Amino acid sequence: MAILTMVEGGVCAASGFYADGIAIGLKKEGAKDLAFIYSDALCVNASVFTTNKMTAAPIRHFREQGDFEGNFVLINAKNANAMTGRAGIEDINEVLHTLQNQFPQIQNPVMSSTGVIGVRLPKVKIVQGAMNFDLNRRDGVAASEAIMTTDTFSKRIAYEVVLEDGRSFRIGAMAKGAGMINPAMATMLCFITTDAAVDKVTMQTLLDECVHTTFNAASVDGDTSTNDTVLVMANGKSGVFEAKAFKEALEKIMLFLAKEMVRDGEGATKLVTYKITGALNDIEAEIVAKALSNSLLVKTALFGEDPNWGRIASTVGASGMMCDEATLSIWFDEVCVYRQGELLFNAELEPFAAAVMQKPAFMIHCDIGQGSGEFIAYGCDLGHEYVKINADYRT
Amino acid sequence: MAILTMVEGGVCAASGFYADGIAIGLKKEGAKDLAFIYSDALCVNASVFTTNKMTAAPIRHFREQGDFEGNFVLINAKNANAMTGRAGIEDINEVLHTLQNQFPQIQNPVMSSTGVIGVRLPKVKIVQGAMNFDLNRRDGVAASEAIMTTDTFSKRIAYEVVLEDGRSFRIGAMAKGAGMINPAMATMLCFITTDAAVDKVTMQTLLDECVHTTFNAASVDGDTSTNDTVLVMANGKSGVFEAKAFKEALEKIMLFLAKEMVRDGEGATKLVTYKITGALNDIEAEIVAKALSNSLLVKTALFGEDPNWGRIASTVGASGMMCDEATLSIWFDEVCVYRQGELLFNAELEPFAAAVMQKPAFMIHCDIGQGSGEFIAYGCDLGHEYVKINADYRT
Repeated sequence: MAILTMVEGGVCAASGFYADGIAIGLKKEGAKDLAFIYSDALCVNASVFTTNKMTAAPIRHFREQGDFEGNFVLINAKNANAMTGRAGIEDINEVLHTLQNQFPQIQNPVMSSTGVIGVRLPKVKIVQGAMNFDLNRRDGVAASEAIMTTDTFSKRIAYEVVLEDGRSFRIGAMAKGAGMINPAMATMLCFITTDAAVDKVTMQTLLDECVHTTFNAASVDGDTSTNDTVLVMANGKSGVFEAKAFKEALEKIMLFLAKEMVRDGEGATKLVTYKITGALNDIEAEIVAKALSNSLLVKTALFGEDPNWGRIASTVGASGMMCDEATLSIWFDEVCVYRQGELLFNAELEPFAAAVMQKPAFMIHCDIGQGSGEFIAYGCDLGHEYVKINADYRT
Repeated sequence: MAILTMVEGGVCAASGFYADGIAIGLKKEGAKDLAFIYSDALCVNASVFTTNKMTAAPIRHFREQGDFEGNFVLINAKNANAMTGRAGIEDINEVLHTLQNQFPQIQNPVMSSTGVIGVRLPKVKIVQGAMNFDLNRRDGVAASEAIMTTDTFSKRIAYEVVLEDGRSFRIGAMAKGAGMINPAMATMLCFITTDAAVDKVTMQTLLDECVHTTFNAASVDGDTSTNDTVLVMANGKSGVFEAKAFKEALEKIMLFLAKEMVRDGEGATKLVTYKITGALNDIEAEIVAKALSNSLLVKTALFGEDPNWGRIASTVGASGMMCDEATLSIWFDEVCVYRQGELLFNAELEPFAAAVMQKPAFMIHCDIGQGSGEFIAYGCDLGHEYVKINADYRT
């Protein structure tokens, strides 16, 4: 059996990958706001993008490249380059062409952006800043910090995968999340680099499978961004690949980042796992789980640390999926508050349920009692900070 | 043409209807919490109930009565009698039978409840309180106050409809709203009384038509309650009916109450009308309108009085409906901030857009530019008070 070991370095953990993050004045107070990922060998790539129809310019630009192998991604914060039309795509081409003149080793570069919608890209600042890139730097920490927006901590992880025969490869990643997070598709920016010798088709298939149970199972606020991107770059430098072990590491990496993203959701104080069992089928389980993780009344009850199981039951009922109060059961971690029509919640049980609610992470489990469908989703609470952050975001 | 005149009295405006609200200790500090509506002649009724599958006991009880004519509704606040199973329905029967023994004029009574989910009905308090009802009272104000929960003001309205030939009838109503308001169905408690000589089938048809463009177009927080009810009672005492005029008055009444409900949404400071034109068809327009009225990012931007049109565009794109940034246009009242790919928003325009956002009520108009589908929805902002109210509701 392959052995997975967590390693340092984020997107620079795999062989041949370089990255850095620098400050060019897009954010205030000298915070890092421009990052790159560079590979010294050409990469095949796999990607998942937002389902939002107002797709941002960087995603349109990426798609216009068709099937390509490249070795460079430029990432800026503070400006989404969305709703900027054809001009937004031309801005990207201009920036990237200038960069290629400066750094001839860059081939087929792409760009990724996050920030405010509807403002043209600050091309001059970005180009002037990027001229200072040192492509020999391997600072995965700086890169992960530069892509943050309202995130309160940077997010990265990497694994070394050692196969039974002793050969190994690595996968590293970084992500940003915080707001506009919703289980409709990729739902944030995430960059994954690997030196595994994986082909494009296999990597895309594995990525699609892993997205469903990780990023697409995570929700902060039910809004889907114009810029959501998961990009995997594989330069094959290890010469090693084994699909099962690769998928295991990829899924672990994506689940970790998805949960970190939710834990760091705008104003979030709790990471809640919604486990649905006994739904009519897996699709119904997923719809119920996401109805719970997106319900404002559930999220505010979580923030208030109120074991208000009635709101859970009501949200299950409102989801439209097959259910019945006579077959439903609800647990907060191991505390069962409602079992198949029986009102278990009383003064004796309340302190136990309340204690669960006070934990920074816990599980709400609903057994629907209608079939064998299952799904696990991840959500957070909604408190005053969410309102504060989002009422003042643009200004 | 029929003439509609607003009149006083709420649910007591129509001939033969009586109502009152009293305090029986369910709410704190002597606030009214138990109401009745009584008609001195038997009524036909029409109704719309929640689509939530965890339907509360009063709705199950109502449906078990089958096709009936009655003259009495008992309404309590602070307890929803939901998730209480068969026992919850038996509680209602017990309360209503005791009431019929005290007041022999009551026939086929029904009950309606709003409040906390998952707690048995306080039967003794309700029965003891109801014994003090004076069925001769016509206090539509007191009744509308007794059904309030987190509402900050009571909601009622009444019209007198005078037909061309001089004959007339009246329609009166009261409603409560505030939280758990979402366009899935009836979405709150609303009681409408009329002395029009309308038959049951016609009344149900007109009610269904009007619900779609009024209560179902209104959203506060995207959650659908277990208890949502719109009940129309018609005792026919005027001997007069004319379908067109009746529908006009009914729709006016329901739209007024729907907008009042949104304006008084939990923590809301603004009533926003979302007008969608140019969608592929009316259904797509409705989906886009409701995506906007339910978007957390839009609602918090409204609270922050931030003309962040990018969030509007992103939400239109995330709705999944046919759209394109090259055909979309966005107005705040008459201020056009984005027109078919053109970024109009600039320093000169911003103060005008910001001034619109500061109004207590305004319109956001999106022309999708894809067809001739239209819909109008009503929503509010989401501020700190929503979080405060809902984090602390149960305790």
